[in-house]
Amino acid sequence: MGYEMAGRLARGGADVLVWNRTKEKAKPLEKYGAKVADELAELASRDIVFCMVSTWKDVKQVVENLLKKEKHVPKLLIECSSISLEGSAELREVLEKKGIRYLAAPVSGNAKVIKAGRLSFVCSGPKKSFQEALPYLKMIAPAASYVGEGELARIVKICHNVFLGVVTQSLAEITILAQKAGVPRHAFLEFMNQSVMGSTFSRYKTPAFVNLDFKVTFTPHLLRKDMDLGLDAGRKFEVPMPLASATRDLIQSMIGQGWTEQDFATLLLQQAEASGLKLKPENVEVGDGLA
Amino acid sequence: MGYEMAGRLARGGADVLVWNRTKEKAKPLEKYGAKVADELAELASRDIVFCMVSTWKDVKQVVENLLKKEKHVPKLLIECSSISLEGSAELREVLEKKGIRYLAAPVSGNAKVIKAGRLSFVCSGPKKSFQEALPYLKMIAPAASYVGEGELARIVKICHNVFLGVVTQSLAEITILAQKAGVPRHAFLEFMNQSVMGSTFSRYKTPAFVNLDFKVTFTPHLLRKDMDLGLDAGRKFEVPMPLASATRDLIQSMIGQGWTEQDFATLLLQQAEASGLKLKPENVEVGDGLA
Amino acid sequence: MGYEMAGRLARGGADVLVWNRTKEKAKPLEKYGAKVADELAELASRDIVFCMVSTWKDVKQVVENLLKKEKHVPKLLIECSSISLEGSAELREVLEKKGIRYLAAPVSGNAKVIKAGRLSFVCSGPKKSFQEALPYLKMIAPAASYVGEGELARIVKICHNVFLGVVTQSLAEITILAQKAGVPRHAFLEFMNQSVMGSTFSRYKTPAFVNLDFKVTFTPHLLRKDMDLGLDAGRKFEVPMPLASATRDLIQSMIGQGWTEQDFATLLLQQAEASGLKLKPENVEVGDGLA
Amino acid sequence: MGYEMAGRLARGGADVLVWNRTKEKAKPLEKYGAKVADELAELASRDIVFCMVSTWKDVKQVVENLLKKEKHVPKLLIECSSISLEGSAELREVLEKKGIRYLAAPVSGNAKVIKAGRLSFVCSGPKKSFQEALPYLKMIAPAASYVGEGELARIVKICHNVFLGVVTQSLAEITILAQKAGVPRHAFLEFMNQSVMGSTFSRYKTPAFVNLDFKVTFTPHLLRKDMDLGLDAGRKFEVPMPLASATRDLIQSMIGQGWTEQDFATLLLQQAEASGLKLKPENVEVGDGLA
Repeated sequence: MGYEMAGRLARGGADVLVWNRTKEKAKPLEKYGAKVADELAELASRDIVFCMVSTWKDVKQVVENLLKKEKHVPKLLIECSSISLEGSAELREVLEKKGIRYLAAPVSGNAKVIKAGRLSFVCSGPKKSFQEALPYLKMIAPAASYVGEGELARIVKICHNVFLGVVTQSLAEITILAQKAGVPRHAFLEFMNQSVMGSTFSRYKTPAFVNLDFKVTFTPHLLRKDMDLGLDAGRKFEVPMPLASATRDLIQSMIGQGWTEQDFATLLLQQAEASGLKLKPENVEVGDGLA
Repeated sequence: MGYEMAGRLARGGADVLVWNRTKEKAKPLEKYGAKVADELAELASRDIVFCMVSTWKDVKQVVENLLKKEKHVPKLLIECSSISLEGSAELREVLEKKGIRYLAAPVSGNAKVIKAGRLSFVCSGPKKSFQEALPYLKMIAPAASYVGEGELARIVKICHNVFLGVVTQSLAEITILAQKAGVPRHAFLEFMNQSVMGSTFSRYKTPAFVNLDFKVTFTPHLLRKDMDLGLDAGRKFEVPMPLASATRDLIQSMIGQGWTEQDFATLLLQQAEASGLKLKPENVEVGDGLA
Repeated sequence: MGYEMAGRLARGGADVLVWNRTKEKAKPLEKYGAKVADELAELASRDIVFCMVSTWKDVKQVVENLLKKEKHVPKLLIECSSISLEGSAELREVLEKKGIRYLAAPVSGNAKVIKAGRLSFVCSGPKKSFQEALPYLKMIAPAASYVGEGELARIVKICHNVFLGVVTQSLAEITILAQKAGVPRHAFLEFMNQSVMGSTFSRYKTPAFVNLDFKVTFTPHLLRKDMDLGLDAGRKFEVPMPLASATRDLIQSMIGQGWTEQDFATLLLQQAEASGLKLKPENVEVGDGLA
Repeated sequence: MGYEMAGRLARGGADVLVWNRTKEKAKPLEKYGAKVADELAELASRDIVFCMVSTWKDVKQVVENLLKKEKHVPKLLIECSSISLEGSAELREVLEKKGIRYLAAPVSGNAKVIKAGRLSFVCSGPKKSFQEALPYLKMIAPAASYVGEGELARIVKICHNVFLGVVTQSLAEITILAQKAGVPRHAFLEFMNQSVMGSTFSRYKTPAFVNLDFKVTFTPHLLRKDMDLGLDAGRKFEVPMPLASATRDLIQSMIGQGWTEQDFATLLLQQAEASGLKLKPENVEVGDGLA
């Protein structure tokens, strides 16, 4: 995802210096005018640093290496990974001590969504930092929301992913019901996607549901992790979440039955088996709404 | 909803004759070139008749009155109400005996959605009838899907409404969670609406969630009825529907606690009470995405 | 089950005339002093007739054949099968026209439970009929409850079976949890059975859970039918039943995955698979509490 | 509960020295031959020490005070409180360092259950310690199960309490359904208690369900805590627990709606409200099965 983000920044006219563990992966960005750093620490001299990695552990390591020389520090760090409230708060403390402003800025969408210009940011931290970041965020994504101080953007991203889990399971239930009643999956989803209930997400999951291509975009384990973060927040704030809980248990069942290496959209396969149905790809060309 | 449909047909250039129980309600359509009938039976001389009422009982009565003179019958009836598979099949039998073709064509959206040019049809019946109807459907709505023979469109509409119930409950869960964590509802929903999970539906429900205006668009009893139609179909086709079941029970609880006269979006209020929260309108101007 | 009931009546001193579709099956009852009828209609001359068959269809047929000669009719019919409220009401109407009193008297327990002297009746109908029946009910079962007029006993039996479904699924969840934590199933269930939560039911299901003997006592399809009767009653009386609904869907999933011919206690196997566990019989001798 | 346990030990012939924070509370035990200590540390000279308090924090403090003199230590500590696996493991480590054997021995039942001679223990730790303890456990309770090494008894107790939560919610659902269908609660529960599904627990909760006496035996917060311990164990051991999750959320809803100070059996009241019913005490004398 970082690649697509950097590409959009460079093409948008920003002066971009990029670092990736595997330098070759960043090289093609040079054609948009970006420079590629040899060492992560080089980025410390920039005003604004974006960070987009996988887990809190990665964020921690990246920030440590970024700041290890301590000669220069950036003015603002924009952290876009999906991490917990606790990790985000720990990071804020570290950065504050060094006088670095910090914007928590997780996103909705994947690499293809960025490429299609459909990403959205949800941001929290000092309002001033948000305003400072906004021109750059807008180069990457058409939409950037500010939801408040501190780590609030993290809980919003967790809520977003809980909703994604529930929506996927519900789509699985109704798609299998429609199919058993006689409606092909592609015809059913074509209507759903055009209906008031259709979303960018339902559209880009349609090829998986129709043609059973479950190349991983997000693993069942990662979705379970986010559902658990949501349920943990529900415990903390005393909010019962019956649909989130039921979905979480269905994801656990899917994992227990061995569906772990493909995309979490295999919830459809589990739903089909529970309905006495063996699915076959429909082999119908369907768009993902992102092309 | 019929008013808006007829208006778009007339403005689209169709030769429209309209009938409504309360004639005055149809009168304003004359400014678009539509004619207003005194009696329902006058419509029988038209090639195509659209029907959009509330329940199967209403459909039955309207069709009886439409055909009572028997001198002329329309070639094609396009039935757009939300009725059961059984009602739809009974209607097909009645119409076939009289040589009238019949397209089941329920819709996704409400009156405001039609007005905004965002309606979608889902159609079943003879493919030829669908093709015949298509130019007129397109005057009303940008999207019309054909899902197969017979009453299949009815089950698709039921699936659509089951999904609508689940999505609303899940939105209620996460909106209250975000709020208890410190994120105002309008900020939270602004992000969700812009995210890949946002839908026309999530956008037009936003004013209700933010400002607690629960003027009825669809009653809890009607939603419960559709959830039950979905669960009945699940029984018939042997499809377990855990999220639909859980949502159905939450709607029943809402009804049991006395929320019956407002919009079903009061699921948000029930969720708030279960979370120990008394909601207040945020009094923030938010769009519904339809203006 | 009828065999064991008749046996206890005969041993209790009642003058018993018994009929079974397969006469040989009833023959052994002669050793307790019962007489065996050649034809069902012979029973019509008796004061009290007990009926214990499988479904409402069977009840209907048995009662028709019982009364076809019309010369004599019994004074009181005690109907012990598990049938719906509607069937029971229809039967009451038929019998009332012929001046036959009618007690709805479904039971809790199976053939082994009767034999062990642990059956219980739940009865509804005229209080006088209950009192008339009581000495005979007591020969069969230590406990007979009267719950009111009409068909109320039928709804109580349905509630009982809904509870049985929920309890079995919950036992499956905790038994698998305890096992994955390291506690053998027999040790876990020994404690549960001795605890305040133990029941005759939990004890007689223990051999199935420990040694995986799923010889059918009640099929998944029959349990699903009773859960659906419970959920239908919940709809009618506007009672949300979240645990019953969730259990119902899990039974449907079990059926969808092909577990249909063994006992419904295979809910344990489904729970194990969802937990990534392949169960093996523990081959430990455990009692069923009925010997 | 400790009072009743000590009483049964003393009456059973054990040489009992008892300590309680409020010495007067222990005084009446002298009539059974027990001695009452002035200081907790006096108990350290005994061979076996039983501990029965509320939470892990209390256990920790009691054990610290028990052992603070270090001149004598008991040979065996039998810990009967309901604590987590982690607390129990920490305690084991502390005791092992001092050469004290340790039996984890939580119980099923409350003070009234002990008094009625119906308590049961579930034990884990060294088998030898269990055998050593057994004669004394048997003075207190008719049943004591050994489930294995280490802290396994703790997970069994958690499973037991999860089941208790599910069973109570399911009883609430069916009791309200039966009532709305016309069956008084006392008649319904009389049958259930006599049926194969009846348990010591269902019997001793009957007065609360019938006469709405919700004097606290176990608070909603404590039950929620145990459900969460169960769900945490489910996460750890990868066991989906759909009924436990659904029940947990209903308990959270009950707490959110303000039912926090009475017994958790107010789940019945929540179920009634969700069913549009205001309950009244039936004022029927019903037994609790313990007298």
